[in-house]
Amino acid sequence: MKTLHLDLGERSYPIYIGSTVLEQPELLVNHIYGKQVVIVTNETIAPLYLKRIENLLAEYTIETVILADGEQYKTLQSTSTIFDTLLEKRFNRNAALIALGGGVIGDIGGFAAACYQRGIAFIQIPTTLLAQVDSSVGGKTGVNHVLGKNMIGAFYQPRCVIIDTEVLKTLDDRQFASGLAEVIKYGLIRDADFFLWLEQNFDLLLRRENDALVFAIERSCTNKAAVVAEDEKESGIRAILNLGHTFGHAIETGCGYGVFLHGEAVAIGTCQAADLSRRMGWLNDEDVAKIIALFERAKLPVKPPDDMTTERFLEHMAVDKKNIDGGIRLILLKAIGSAILPMSIEQKLLKETLHEYGRN
Amino acid sequence: MKTLHLDLGERSYPIYIGSTVLEQPELLVNHIYGKQVVIVTNETIAPLYLKRIENLLAEYTIETVILADGEQYKTLQSTSTIFDTLLEKRFNRNAALIALGGGVIGDIGGFAAACYQRGIAFIQIPTTLLAQVDSSVGGKTGVNHVLGKNMIGAFYQPRCVIIDTEVLKTLDDRQFASGLAEVIKYGLIRDADFFLWLEQNFDLLLRRENDALVFAIERSCTNKAAVVAEDEKESGIRAILNLGHTFGHAIETGCGYGVFLHGEAVAIGTCQAADLSRRMGWLNDEDVAKIIALFERAKLPVKPPDDMTTERFLEHMAVDKKNIDGGIRLILLKAIGSAILPMSIEQKLLKETLHEYGRN
Repeated sequence: MKTLHLDLGERSYPIYIGSTVLEQPELLVNHIYGKQVVIVTNETIAPLYLKRIENLLAEYTIETVILADGEQYKTLQSTSTIFDTLLEKRFNRNAALIALGGGVIGDIGGFAAACYQRGIAFIQIPTTLLAQVDSSVGGKTGVNHVLGKNMIGAFYQPRCVIIDTEVLKTLDDRQFASGLAEVIKYGLIRDADFFLWLEQNFDLLLRRENDALVFAIERSCTNKAAVVAEDEKESGIRAILNLGHTFGHAIETGCGYGVFLHGEAVAIGTCQAADLSRRMGWLNDEDVAKIIALFERAKLPVKPPDDMTTERFLEHMAVDKKNIDGGIRLILLKAIGSAILPMSIEQKLLKETLHEYGRN
Repeated sequence: MKTLHLDLGERSYPIYIGSTVLEQPELLVNHIYGKQVVIVTNETIAPLYLKRIENLLAEYTIETVILADGEQYKTLQSTSTIFDTLLEKRFNRNAALIALGGGVIGDIGGFAAACYQRGIAFIQIPTTLLAQVDSSVGGKTGVNHVLGKNMIGAFYQPRCVIIDTEVLKTLDDRQFASGLAEVIKYGLIRDADFFLWLEQNFDLLLRRENDALVFAIERSCTNKAAVVAEDEKESGIRAILNLGHTFGHAIETGCGYGVFLHGEAVAIGTCQAADLSRRMGWLNDEDVAKIIALFERAKLPVKPPDDMTTERFLEHMAVDKKNIDGGIRLILLKAIGSAILPMSIEQKLLKETLHEYGRN
């Protein structure tokens, strides 16, 4: 087992990574101070792992909230369902909430933990690659609004994150590939060596070999933890974690939540960001080709759907959280391994990218 | 103008108190960094003060959300209405939210500011005595749930609090008295000298004489700021601010939100807490009589309604946020000017108090 630490002063916490960490009840129990535990999960994950987690917690009063599976259920309504259960069962401020599932469950569960009685203990047990390498670490929680993704939420750090690579064995190929998009992201934004490792070892990852998985997850979480420790509430550098996400969120919102998986939309968005970085004169054609090639090896989409016109992109990109008083802000690449947030984007170049990629 | 400071490290902020502070645009503008401002208020306050605040902000893009007036609208639904407006108008993370109103508006507005894009700037302009001396200071925000008051919320500090005593001139007598309940509370929990001052100067306050108002508000806010600075997230001492509130919340929830004003319920609850403190051997009959007398001078109720039976009290008190794994926890008085949170309450004495006060 590897243990990473996210260093945030009194909000610091450990991230446990390994293939047997769900067999070690102490990892969980050491972070629960009360007697009441609510497990938030979904219909896909519950039959696979719920019983196992409950068995680790025989000494506690356990309630479960099983939500429908999918990004389209990441709503204020789902958080409300959790509040109803907690209040009906008279859960107090010492209760702990465990999010057992992918990014959607972690985001909803974390937001519910942040708001219930103004904050109860929160533990992440991510069950998708995407959640393991990205959304479970760093304390971003929240839900979607019909007019924008993750628009309602809180910065709320978990007490610990428990990442078991065994659970990836039951993950379907499309979900697994979606996680790889975020893994590739870390190489692109701040870790050129890791990008090189990925190019050389991608087949091991695609075969889900345990050592490769543990290495890639640990390296991803190390990168994420370093960025979050530097800028917990995204007043600056943390924004680089959003490479490809502004385009990606526009695709997710524009096509309706659930049509594209988050990582799929990010893969497309990252190709668009790479294209725009090339137009800005930072990446060369070969860099862009390497980036696209890695996404393609993961069988991720690299072009937006035809109905995402330039106009629809611009409309949805206008509500991105990074925007400041009117201007669209994007994370771009100075080089493979080096991301930046330019103060402004040349509209003409952005439109060229959207035109190139929007096929309109 | 008096300026108090709430000392919370990087979350510190000023509290401005005076009779002309709403004529000083710089107090407001110095705390707004973006160009977009949303004013959240209600149907009662909007016709009185909205235009005035808008005039202070001529340089900004302003949106207003006017909610219905009353505790029964302090719901997740109202926060949702604010999110809808902010997203429809494409408000970004640099936007500021001004809560212009009483405690309900401050709590809803603050919670919406805490959650919109994971947190935007928040400014409190409290327009009731209760909000000025209590709810606008200290960062507790949130909404009610049918099963419990303030059960969904966040600790989220404002950038500043602007308290104009002039607005109290338009406040109806019942609302004004409700605020006096919290003023009296500060004397009871930690400021015996202030309690004495109140006994001696209560008629000046009841006549709403400006110097008496400024003194009482400043002294109340000073006490509140000291407690909050010591324990921002209520892991200990901050709970004393809840004197009378556990009984009070039971009355508010039990009778339905909006039947009793918050301060009215707190007045009754504080009399119950004083009675229980007497039974515990801490207060004498004279102390209790003094406390009741001061509430009566404010024309506040001092007995719960007949339909609040012992059983209903216990049922509603069981979901209080202070409770830890089963036991009901209450703030009581060791003396006038000295509150404590006993580790446990003798059930027999609690039932005697409920019986005495519940007339059942």
